[in-house]
Amino acid sequence: MPRWESGARERLQQAALPLFQERGYDGVTVAEIAAAAGLTERTFFRHFTDKREVLFQGQDQLERSFLDGAAEASGDDAMSLARAALDRAAGFFPDDRRPWARARQTVIDANPALQERELLKLSALAAALTRALAARGIDPVTAALAAESTVTVFRTAFTAWIAEEEPRPFAEVQAAVLTGLHALLAPGRA
Amino acid sequence: MPRWESGARERLQQAALPLFQERGYDGVTVAEIAAAAGLTERTFFRHFTDKREVLFQGQDQLERSFLDGAAEASGDDAMSLARAALDRAAGFFPDDRRPWARARQTVIDANPALQERELLKLSALAAALTRALAARGIDPVTAALAAESTVTVFRTAFTAWIAEEEPRPFAEVQAAVLTGLHALLAPGRA
Repeated sequence: MPRWESGARERLQQAALPLFQERGYDGVTVAEIAAAAGLTERTFFRHFTDKREVLFQGQDQLERSFLDGAAEASGDDAMSLARAALDRAAGFFPDDRRPWARARQTVIDANPALQERELLKLSALAAALTRALAARGIDPVTAALAAESTVTVFRTAFTAWIAEEEPRPFAEVQAAVLTGLHALLAPGRA
Repeated sequence: MPRWESGARERLQQAALPLFQERGYDGVTVAEIAAAAGLTERTFFRHFTDKREVLFQGQDQLERSFLDGAAEASGDDAMSLARAALDRAAGFFPDDRRPWARARQTVIDANPALQERELLKLSALAAALTRALAARGIDPVTAALAAESTVTVFRTAFTAWIAEEEPRPFAEVQAAVLTGLHALLAPGRA
């Protein structure tokens, strides 16, 4: 893909968010997004299969990064794999993406259908991670618990990371959340 | 509600499942469910607002039982509240409900719209529990982790409980899953 095409994708994503925030996700057409980015509808559809993809493109790569992290982990117990998955996924959220991620979330939070889509994606991620851990020989219940806990840590960290007052980078927020989960379930508090 | 009415509700639920299993959830009408139970459509709608409620009625009480369990817990740390919520909810799944729960799950697993509905219900449960724990003075991140972990333990236990070969009662399965989560996140494995 030539460089200007990749620029077009980001221009479309940048142009779409303020429109969604002003008029609601359902109140904005693909033609309007393309016009706001100074591009044509045809260019839009070279980058996104539909309007929703403006918000969700990249989630397949995010799932892939969790799975790759687990696949390439050096340890072989469930939490080593989970931690490696979380570490790899953290690379998806550099600080310069934070304003966009924050704006994107306000659009999703305002639209039940988008919330459902996000929930389904996270559920699919947990299921894929469960299968990946089970394929590494981890028993099914432990695999499910580790995978669901991984998604819980990720979601909780993401919510904290996009909070207005949060200055720490994603990896640091996520490490603190994971530490919090360990502390919550430490035997002394059991 | 007179006793025969409560009997009608259960007859309708019992009659619906084999129909759903044979012809798929979408292939069965309310009239057919009522006829299979030897009742009228009018009686059906005295017990359920729509066809989906045959499968999901009772979930509001289940959510309530989690919240009541947490509200009446004697401890005040997050995991004491979570454990109390899980203990209370276990009462919802006596052994004589297991065949129905198992059949219900096969219907849900075969239908994406029903799966979404179930996912939304569990997500709403986690959100309600998070709010309840935060209202008890638990910090928001810990509240979210404890609530999500509670739902993870419940879901994992439910899946194990309805497995064909599982003989243990729900409370016992769930306690073992919770122990498994503690072991997974014990400091020695961190």
